[in-house]
Amino acid sequence: MKIVKSKIYNLIRDDDVNNLASNIFDFFIISLIIINVVLVIADTFNLPNIVQQISNKIEVSSVLIFTIEYLLRLWTSDFIYPQKTSFQARFKYAFSFIAIIDLLAILPFYIPFLIPIDLRILRVIRIIRLLRIFKFNRYTDAFSIIGRVLKNKASQLMSSIFVVITLVIITSVLMYNFENVAQPDKFRNVFDGMWWAVATFTTVGYGDIYPVTAVGKILSGIIAMLGIGLVAVPTGIISAGFVEQIQSSENDEKKYCPYCGKKL
Amino acid sequence: MKIVKSKIYNLIRDDDVNNLASNIFDFFIISLIIINVVLVIADTFNLPNIVQQISNKIEVSSVLIFTIEYLLRLWTSDFIYPQKTSFQARFKYAFSFIAIIDLLAILPFYIPFLIPIDLRILRVIRIIRLLRIFKFNRYTDAFSIIGRVLKNKASQLMSSIFVVITLVIITSVLMYNFENVAQPDKFRNVFDGMWWAVATFTTVGYGDIYPVTAVGKILSGIIAMLGIGLVAVPTGIISAGFVEQIQSSENDEKKYCPYCGKKL
Amino acid sequence: MKIVKSKIYNLIRDDDVNNLASNIFDFFIISLIIINVVLVIADTFNLPNIVQQISNKIEVSSVLIFTIEYLLRLWTSDFIYPQKTSFQARFKYAFSFIAIIDLLAILPFYIPFLIPIDLRILRVIRIIRLLRIFKFNRYTDAFSIIGRVLKNKASQLMSSIFVVITLVIITSVLMYNFENVAQPDKFRNVFDGMWWAVATFTTVGYGDIYPVTAVGKILSGIIAMLGIGLVAVPTGIISAGFVEQIQSSENDEKKYCPYCGKKL
Amino acid sequence: MKIVKSKIYNLIRDDDVNNLASNIFDFFIISLIIINVVLVIADTFNLPNIVQQISNKIEVSSVLIFTIEYLLRLWTSDFIYPQKTSFQARFKYAFSFIAIIDLLAILPFYIPFLIPIDLRILRVIRIIRLLRIFKFNRYTDAFSIIGRVLKNKASQLMSSIFVVITLVIITSVLMYNFENVAQPDKFRNVFDGMWWAVATFTTVGYGDIYPVTAVGKILSGIIAMLGIGLVAVPTGIISAGFVEQIQSSENDEKKYCPYCGKKL
Repeated sequence: MKIVKSKIYNLIRDDDVNNLASNIFDFFIISLIIINVVLVIADTFNLPNIVQQISNKIEVSSVLIFTIEYLLRLWTSDFIYPQKTSFQARFKYAFSFIAIIDLLAILPFYIPFLIPIDLRILRVIRIIRLLRIFKFNRYTDAFSIIGRVLKNKASQLMSSIFVVITLVIITSVLMYNFENVAQPDKFRNVFDGMWWAVATFTTVGYGDIYPVTAVGKILSGIIAMLGIGLVAVPTGIISAGFVEQIQSSENDEKKYCPYCGKKL
Repeated sequence: MKIVKSKIYNLIRDDDVNNLASNIFDFFIISLIIINVVLVIADTFNLPNIVQQISNKIEVSSVLIFTIEYLLRLWTSDFIYPQKTSFQARFKYAFSFIAIIDLLAILPFYIPFLIPIDLRILRVIRIIRLLRIFKFNRYTDAFSIIGRVLKNKASQLMSSIFVVITLVIITSVLMYNFENVAQPDKFRNVFDGMWWAVATFTTVGYGDIYPVTAVGKILSGIIAMLGIGLVAVPTGIISAGFVEQIQSSENDEKKYCPYCGKKL
Repeated sequence: MKIVKSKIYNLIRDDDVNNLASNIFDFFIISLIIINVVLVIADTFNLPNIVQQISNKIEVSSVLIFTIEYLLRLWTSDFIYPQKTSFQARFKYAFSFIAIIDLLAILPFYIPFLIPIDLRILRVIRIIRLLRIFKFNRYTDAFSIIGRVLKNKASQLMSSIFVVITLVIITSVLMYNFENVAQPDKFRNVFDGMWWAVATFTTVGYGDIYPVTAVGKILSGIIAMLGIGLVAVPTGIISAGFVEQIQSSENDEKKYCPYCGKKL
Repeated sequence: MKIVKSKIYNLIRDDDVNNLASNIFDFFIISLIIINVVLVIADTFNLPNIVQQISNKIEVSSVLIFTIEYLLRLWTSDFIYPQKTSFQARFKYAFSFIAIIDLLAILPFYIPFLIPIDLRILRVIRIIRLLRIFKFNRYTDAFSIIGRVLKNKASQLMSSIFVVITLVIITSVLMYNFENVAQPDKFRNVFDGMWWAVATFTTVGYGDIYPVTAVGKILSGIIAMLGIGLVAVPTGIISAGFVEQIQSSENDEKKYCPYCGKKL
């Protein structure tokens, strides 16, 4: 039993690059995640009946496989924390970020069996399937980088987001008051002004809403320049944070002796 | 009397983090500011009568509370400048940036009682209420950062803004002359050209105005590249200024002696 | 005579900050330039007759004043190059950048007196008046900074502009071939494709032209990312060049001893 | 024979700056490339018959000249690798990047003579002619810079592109579900959501598709800020890579001994 468990653990662990069976298993799970993401996208098209039936079968199979994977990972999690008791290890693993994602990826499927639900909730459940994309977390550190960047830069981001929100509020109230008379169907309330402000400050500028009065245009010209400068701050902080992370993780990779392979 | 005044001062001062009563008072004022900002936004919707009446009552209460707060702060301001006489301290405080904001946040409310006003002025007064958002200044240094950034980078900004204005004028006169014949209703005068230039150089590009002639498109393609480069300068200066400020204020926090814990 | 000439030179030279008369003269010329720029803009509006007559009178007066200014500067230019002969000094000055701008600012006015011209040329002459804006060059180094930046970064800019042009050509030919069938009135030829490419790569995105076919959208999504990265290079080079220039000129200002005023 | 071959090699080699004949040859080939690119663009216009006939004649002549050029380069390629045998040198040259480009620039022209083709394939062949633009590779290192930048930054780009794709998928599924009910003709499926996401995150914002529901606008406002920050990462990496390359190649130019002038 112990040997079987150990073999399963070596099969499903994701950092064991030299084990062929483990690599095949990883490749299988990654393929299944990609198929699931494709299915969520395909579901938004009007597919012929036969395709929908296949889609449903793949969905059921995926959930079963992901459920077995989840249970096996939970069962073998005492190998991850050898110092802990079997129960403590599983408890700790069950509340790790990656295990919660694994659980959320399968749980919605079982809800219709447990409680009666209507079509709206079913739709939400279908969207939640998309969380399976985060199961990739096990095979790449790209998502953890996002988390770390947002965490590292949290205080900087908070300051600048507070300034941006203040600017958006003031600008939108002003623009509403200038433009509401000229185009009451476009600038109906301050929320429309906010939508305009966000589209302008991020320089997206869809063109669905823009000032037409002379005062509105002059004001928007002036604050656009200041606003773009202000909004560039959180964007710049996030970008800088990512580049820092990518570079530092590259540096980490280089911090190994090229001759003996030991970490320096 | 002196003890009461001292207690009030300790209650309303904003840097006294360990005083529970003071923290509750701060929380109360911050909540009131947020409610006021929400009310200004809500006022732009067609609210039912009952909500408008509540809104008015909150407005009156807010002004009364902010007035009392302002008077108490003015009264206790001799604690801030202990070396000065009571009158000097209050005079100095009354003309500080934060006290002027506090005054402007309540003053417009009293104007209709003092002089007869028409509806248009009433509207302006309603907008001025939005200045209450700057009362947050007391609880965050985000706004002072804006002021400092614009002040630090003033000479750099002036130079680049002068270049940008020159570019906008030349571009708009040229575009007006090229496009006016082809679309006289869009490029009616140089101001329309300026509106186009600002929307293009900031890369917002609403799509309400753009060149249609071959010459206009070629010119706009060439100057768009140069213009975006030029306009990126003040935007970049503001962004860089903010990031510097945020980083330097973070460094300030770190400027404590690691041995004794005293601020260096 | 020599004394009069010397006095005039001291009056019109622009670097003599402590001379009150010279400062008044500078202020007068600067005001006149601003008035001229305002007039060029105002000319694009349908002005009442009386305003147009005043505008014409200001135009004639401006040209006369600028002509006298130009001749006086030419006459006194031997003070600028004391080592040269009077003729050599004037010849050298006449071909300096600032003197050519001064000449171009007045010359177009005299063309209708010399040769018979039609209305179209008259219109071009009216636009050339805008060159007067560069007379500001004497009072600010903002324009010389543009020239220096473009010159310093010339080789870098050339490389990246060549890459951008190649990308624009390839992209526009591809997009023309993908979109021409679906929207023959929008993507009429490769020039329309180029207009789309410039609007997309600069992220302006007016919305007058965009792909509608699936292949066109996928292609445009992929090359937009690469294209924006490539176009960001010349923009970034120009921006970086300006910030460098502004900072280095600020450093130059600081390189004076604060006690004795000597350049370090 | 050996002397003729040597003379031809010296004529067609592109790094021999002091040879007048070679420079004339280079100028001739460069002109021919530019003419060919102009012809590809001109072909998309409805040209009069006479122009099309000239265009066809230039096309035939170009292909003949480029074919002769290709054969001569292949024949003389044993001068490039003197240590290798004649066959090895030609084999190695034939599979170099620049030789493949040279071959692809002429090969499509001969396909219609070899196999029967229909009009659609003829169209693709006409587009492939555009590859001739990469023959410039011989005269500039701008294209090799693109290749090197993308190669140097490959791992960084992969990480950030993976994050961007994930964000685009999640965003587009969410936006499809929010907006599909309100505007079923705009957000028809997740692909429309992806098109919106790309246009928004790159800040192009054509304005052909944008959210109209309150929830969609709030969501798009929040994720636009995050998305722009994320998408700015690969764009920033590409830009940074280019600036590094341009600077390092400039530094390379400076790496000559100031005393003897030899390259270090």
